[in-house]
Amino acid sequence: MALTPGPLAGTPGPFSGRHIAGLAQDLRRGHATSAELAEQALDAIAALGPELNAFVTVDAAGARAAARRADAELAAGTDRGPLHGIPVAVKDLIMIAGLRVTMGSRHFAGHVPEADAACVARLRRAGAVIVGTTTTHEFAYGPTGDRSASGPAHNPWDPSRMTGGSSAGSGAAVAAGLVPLALGTDTGGSVRIPAALCGVAGFKPAYDAIPADGVFPLSRTLDHVGVLAGTAEDCLLASTCLTEPTGRKHATPPTGGADRPDVVGPVRVAWLDPAGLFDGDPRVVRAVRAAAGPLEEVRLPPGLADALRDTYTVIQSCETAAVHADRLAGAPELFDPEVLERLRVAMEVPGWRYIRAMDGRARLAEAAGALFDRHDVLALPTVPIIAPPLGVRETEIGGRPAAVRAALLALTSPWNVLGRPALTVPAGTVDGLPVGLQLVGRPGHEALIFEAARTLGRHAGARS
Amino acid sequence: MALTPGPLAGTPGPFSGRHIAGLAQDLRRGHATSAELAEQALDAIAALGPELNAFVTVDAAGARAAARRADAELAAGTDRGPLHGIPVAVKDLIMIAGLRVTMGSRHFAGHVPEADAACVARLRRAGAVIVGTTTTHEFAYGPTGDRSASGPAHNPWDPSRMTGGSSAGSGAAVAAGLVPLALGTDTGGSVRIPAALCGVAGFKPAYDAIPADGVFPLSRTLDHVGVLAGTAEDCLLASTCLTEPTGRKHATPPTGGADRPDVVGPVRVAWLDPAGLFDGDPRVVRAVRAAAGPLEEVRLPPGLADALRDTYTVIQSCETAAVHADRLAGAPELFDPEVLERLRVAMEVPGWRYIRAMDGRARLAEAAGALFDRHDVLALPTVPIIAPPLGVRETEIGGRPAAVRAALLALTSPWNVLGRPALTVPAGTVDGLPVGLQLVGRPGHEALIFEAARTLGRHAGARS
Repeated sequence: MALTPGPLAGTPGPFSGRHIAGLAQDLRRGHATSAELAEQALDAIAALGPELNAFVTVDAAGARAAARRADAELAAGTDRGPLHGIPVAVKDLIMIAGLRVTMGSRHFAGHVPEADAACVARLRRAGAVIVGTTTTHEFAYGPTGDRSASGPAHNPWDPSRMTGGSSAGSGAAVAAGLVPLALGTDTGGSVRIPAALCGVAGFKPAYDAIPADGVFPLSRTLDHVGVLAGTAEDCLLASTCLTEPTGRKHATPPTGGADRPDVVGPVRVAWLDPAGLFDGDPRVVRAVRAAAGPLEEVRLPPGLADALRDTYTVIQSCETAAVHADRLAGAPELFDPEVLERLRVAMEVPGWRYIRAMDGRARLAEAAGALFDRHDVLALPTVPIIAPPLGVRETEIGGRPAAVRAALLALTSPWNVLGRPALTVPAGTVDGLPVGLQLVGRPGHEALIFEAARTLGRHAGARS
Repeated sequence: MALTPGPLAGTPGPFSGRHIAGLAQDLRRGHATSAELAEQALDAIAALGPELNAFVTVDAAGARAAARRADAELAAGTDRGPLHGIPVAVKDLIMIAGLRVTMGSRHFAGHVPEADAACVARLRRAGAVIVGTTTTHEFAYGPTGDRSASGPAHNPWDPSRMTGGSSAGSGAAVAAGLVPLALGTDTGGSVRIPAALCGVAGFKPAYDAIPADGVFPLSRTLDHVGVLAGTAEDCLLASTCLTEPTGRKHATPPTGGADRPDVVGPVRVAWLDPAGLFDGDPRVVRAVRAAAGPLEEVRLPPGLADALRDTYTVIQSCETAAVHADRLAGAPELFDPEVLERLRVAMEVPGWRYIRAMDGRARLAEAAGALFDRHDVLALPTVPIIAPPLGVRETEIGGRPAAVRAALLALTSPWNVLGRPALTVPAGTVDGLPVGLQLVGRPGHEALIFEAARTLGRHAGARS
């Protein structure tokens, strides 16, 4: 299933094709030190920074100190688990004590949080080495990833194209091999979209599985914290560390997905016809379907797609406007013009629609739940188009005009409304640009999603 | 504290000055039968119906059957408690199985519910005899009580004046002595306002103390079910029956508030200066303060009144619009024009304001809670004006223009935002029209409110 991550203008980064489990083994066998891994990451970020604009703030001193501590602990026999000593990047709206965190906005140009977000605290407890913050679409309010006070992130596969967003820099950094792991947030697809468009894996756990405390909110009942990494296995490993309160569950690093002899696993996977949600690029749909292999097909009940989309739009608009109303009144000029315009529209969405949308979520969850009656996991494309050029907002799909934002979000945002865990894994390329296969499951049964990723990977003749 | 209820154009109704506890004793001593009480109520309703327009639907057959059953049960030794055999009226938006319930609206002109509201089911289990439905302001959306598909209710003290609303008919029916007890609902004061303006007692328990299932919603996080009766004791007795799930807690009727020898009870009562909430009619404030007797005075913290009012308006607007959006789109012509206009305004209130208002309630509760640090109960006028003439929307208070709706709601709606239990008891008259003393307490400590009503009543030299 896995692709070789990003060709990246000729220079694959130091972590291209290297998995966390392997790095963890290297650290424990004395084949590498955390200090070396940190230097490799810092060197690569410095070398590729201008081209990709993946990072906003690099914390070389902090990373070096954390790496030294990690090495010393391992040497002393203290093993914090599979993330111990691993370089990690953090999206620029997740609070890191003492480091500049800007939300991609001029409103927070010099903002230095006093405390770590809960997920950052868990990273630290797990021994991870935070190397810096990655570019976010301003306030995470956009799936294109190309509007930020510090400029757009560039897609390592073609720097003239967008990474997708809003976790734009996290997608670019992992795809370029600058770090093996990055944190993102996902309100309508903001982890999965850049992961898919940049050719890496991305996992949005179930709602609230990774706590959002200390993450700057976009839309509080839709916001999810998630992870981007080279493979599904690395996503599972990292999200497990972030979900476990102590970060110490894994006393020994896992093997990286044992090869199981059964070709067809026990996981019941169905193909969800994406046409019910969005009329996407047929080349993308074909490529992803081929990567998924032969599967029974299911369709959304009539009306559900529209209801999910409306619900998403109304809830996100009202919750986002509630976050920004004061800034909008006090200093509108500090917003990116596109974000400002979207906020102004969001301010007008009436309260009765918010109440109805919130009330309707339980009914939508029930209707969507029927899709899972006979299957554990639904497979569909993550994004129904390839990465558009930076700044483009209108595109053509099959000769018809289509809005880029709507296309990017169409297949991911339903699972935010429903709070379901969803993984994207690389599924080949179209026109030389990566496409993603999305696997959606049940809260509490995340393991089946990852099992499905392994099973489908074997079907497609690839290996992660 | 109690007044002789409504002089009512010369003809006091059969239940004027008769209390539930006394009626319950009469029933058990053989001095009256439930059938007789029901006939007295039905006769009085028929005689005074046209003048007061207190009732929408009278269920003579149902009342007679229920009264016969009540008598038979008592004769057979089955005693359902203090409401057993007592005639009760129910506001015309609380569902009664098999009886027409219209919400005061042409949208529901012929509506016959299939099931009882939870509070009606409790009334029945307590042995009460439901005689009919009482006029509500259309969909309970108005504190004036004078807009309804079946016409306005008239104040028994002066039929040219409004009862206040929205439980308009319940106020008129109890004040005129047509029934000893009526159910109402109270979203911003709709039990307490008509009780005060009609010279009876009214009690809004804490939020959700009496379940609202089967009550047509106005604003779901502000709606409370409450009771109107001649005295505070009767309100306590009835609300206790409605709050207890079985309705069987009172095996014997209570004594109706035992005379306790202590003049100053253990309840700590403070006077809350109403000027912090609304600049009311000084004559009303003086009269109520005199009725309350000497009390330490407390004031609202700065800004709290505005915040409470804004919060109330935003939440009520959005929640009400969410209830009526489909009717507004489908058949706007069936609404009363004033209600229609208010709904159209409510439809425009933005969702971000709703989210902020809902978030702010906890902070407001904390700020208001400080008022109760040293006192159990706050006393203030229920309504800062006397009943205005029917249909009037602008009035003068102390020579300044004032909006009638704002004046009616000003002192009651804060306690809906905060979900606090609040009682109104008669506190004399101004210009020959009744005024009410409001007593606000803590959820779970409702008994202290009623104890305060008894204590203040003795101070004022009156007896209930």
